[in-house]
Amino acid sequence: MPTLSSKGLQMPASPIRKLVPYAETAKKAGKYVFHLNIGQPDIASPQVAIDAVKNMDRTVIEYSHSAGFESYRNGLSDYYKKFNLPINPEDIMITTGGSEALTFAFMTCFNPGDEVIIPEPFYANYNGFATSAGIKIVPVTADIQTGFALPDVADFEKLITEKTKGIVICNPANPTGYLYTKEELEKLREIVQRHDLYLFADEVYREFCYDGATPFSVMSLQGIEENVVLIDSVSKRYSMCGARIGALISKNKKLMETALKFAQARLSPPTLAQIASEAALQTPDNYFTDVVDEYVERRNIMVDGLNAIDGVFCPKPKGAFYCIAEFPVDDAERFCQWLLEEFEFEGNTVMMAPASGFYATKGLGKKQARIAYVLEKSALKKAVRCLEEALKVYPGRDQ
Amino acid sequence: MPTLSSKGLQMPASPIRKLVPYAETAKKAGKYVFHLNIGQPDIASPQVAIDAVKNMDRTVIEYSHSAGFESYRNGLSDYYKKFNLPINPEDIMITTGGSEALTFAFMTCFNPGDEVIIPEPFYANYNGFATSAGIKIVPVTADIQTGFALPDVADFEKLITEKTKGIVICNPANPTGYLYTKEELEKLREIVQRHDLYLFADEVYREFCYDGATPFSVMSLQGIEENVVLIDSVSKRYSMCGARIGALISKNKKLMETALKFAQARLSPPTLAQIASEAALQTPDNYFTDVVDEYVERRNIMVDGLNAIDGVFCPKPKGAFYCIAEFPVDDAERFCQWLLEEFEFEGNTVMMAPASGFYATKGLGKKQARIAYVLEKSALKKAVRCLEEALKVYPGRDQ
Repeated sequence: MPTLSSKGLQMPASPIRKLVPYAETAKKAGKYVFHLNIGQPDIASPQVAIDAVKNMDRTVIEYSHSAGFESYRNGLSDYYKKFNLPINPEDIMITTGGSEALTFAFMTCFNPGDEVIIPEPFYANYNGFATSAGIKIVPVTADIQTGFALPDVADFEKLITEKTKGIVICNPANPTGYLYTKEELEKLREIVQRHDLYLFADEVYREFCYDGATPFSVMSLQGIEENVVLIDSVSKRYSMCGARIGALISKNKKLMETALKFAQARLSPPTLAQIASEAALQTPDNYFTDVVDEYVERRNIMVDGLNAIDGVFCPKPKGAFYCIAEFPVDDAERFCQWLLEEFEFEGNTVMMAPASGFYATKGLGKKQARIAYVLEKSALKKAVRCLEEALKVYPGRDQ
Repeated sequence: MPTLSSKGLQMPASPIRKLVPYAETAKKAGKYVFHLNIGQPDIASPQVAIDAVKNMDRTVIEYSHSAGFESYRNGLSDYYKKFNLPINPEDIMITTGGSEALTFAFMTCFNPGDEVIIPEPFYANYNGFATSAGIKIVPVTADIQTGFALPDVADFEKLITEKTKGIVICNPANPTGYLYTKEELEKLREIVQRHDLYLFADEVYREFCYDGATPFSVMSLQGIEENVVLIDSVSKRYSMCGARIGALISKNKKLMETALKFAQARLSPPTLAQIASEAALQTPDNYFTDVVDEYVERRNIMVDGLNAIDGVFCPKPKGAFYCIAEFPVDDAERFCQWLLEEFEFEGNTVMMAPASGFYATKGLGKKQARIAYVLEKSALKKAVRCLEEALKVYPGRDQ
């Protein structure tokens, strides 16, 4: 048998899937498992998007333009203008999810061996895209005590070498829920400008900002227009994760031309999902106010509930639908596995994603787990209750 | 502005798009252009596939499993069994088009710098996937005089070095329409076995075999089960190019496990298109007999028509819906451009893809063009007539 590639062998497994076999065993044993490990919202997709697909009058499911429907790019440009973002249709390329947008961006901008700095903990699939492109992620550590705010400029500067070609952020962030302020983004601008780096921002949780906070986009940063790449997606915004429609956005024309060559090689983004996504632009505003209201309540139940448990600390995030909590345990991965294997309370248990998989620095996040509060409120209350009871009896509890 | 990657800069532009600006100018000038340059069939997608999407009862467009719906993989396995191919559900990973399947296969099996041998002329997007993976395509030249039959084993052997890790074929072939025989595939098996290479076969035109010919799949080759990777897609089979649903198939378990890590990083293939593709498995047999009958007539009009023109030679292919013709001209690219810029007959002209873009060896295919006979018969007749008249007056005609 021929050998596999070293990329293939190095390709990291996903931290949110690591415990899936234990969850399956728990279910077979008759336990009900609250899935807080994965960001698949239970919210209905906008009716206008579903209806567009159900009412389509196409007889041939044809290729679209490699950069996506022109009408959809026009509509997206209008969508961004509502956020005062100066994004024109020609700055937009429709991609197969935010995943493909980031893959194309890495392939377009980086050579094998190049380094990108990413605040950790970060979305674990960035590891996969980096491995595919042959680049190295250099983590700059954010602190749970600050709620995972942007690390100091000096911490970034220390890591910059000749190989450093870019910085990647997620804002609002998966897995921390942290929302960067305008001031933090302006600090990033300084670094990017000083070293002529790319700044990639994954802003797929734009609509999920709480407590009156508003998102500040990298596309609003002045003076680094040629350096900035925005990654977007309909997955979370419209609860359409399965559509696989995203966007790669930049004012840098040369970059967009080059990215288009990668897009042409794969022909086109999915047509049916573009029909749904273009229609989703007509989603009424109250869809988002309802969703945000719901998530604020869910967040409060989860985060306030966790903080009320003796020994647990969970910063209260202003965005996305994740939080990272620190538990009074020997090892969060062991704790998460034990919850599935050994524990139940009133027939229920909880599945969380151990946070160590979201850190690139070995040994960090050992007592932390990521929680996606994507279930309905009654389920979240039961999940918190489970965790409270579990910590009373977990054998590896900190003394 | 930061530099772009060398991969990005090397990324080849598509040969089928090169003349698009000239086609646009021709249309603005009021000419009707017969598009024979691109393989977008005009055939209707199966009604059962369209209806499945229109009648779906989902309220959330969720992620699927990263390897695709389990029910779809089960159904696909049954589909292959009708062709006597021993493919089980666990041998199948659903991908975002055949493009993603081949990208994942390259990433999984090859290291940067590795070489793959591909009979030329070949599907030009293989260049893009190879550039993304950092591998080198080594062409082995097929001859138009043999109808682009498999080159001799000795021709392959001459090209094999320590860096050679695989062979890629397309069968039935885009861009030649050539259908490899069982004997040709057994020759490939010998080479693959002798040097322990991967054999990737792009068999997306399986249903498009003419004159009673039947396709012989690499999955039927005995003794190299661990080396073989089948690339498939619904794009052409069901005229659903825009669905973006394909499959990566192999009996090599280690390979499939590794490919799944790439699939997990991009989360899932498109959900709506999987609904359509799974339903398309129920397409009645007469859909294919009707489509094949139609393409045989189209092929005959095109190929017989071309061969009836003085100085034109076009082998008659047994598969897919392409042919490559040699024209009595100085330069086929110049001829194709001239057709759009300078020529019209009864208000019409023809757009073809110059074949040089399908060869990796510089200078080959200079008098050849690829034709996709994907238009209705009356249009093809007019297109042939156009070419006949054009060759009477083209200033660069061979003496």
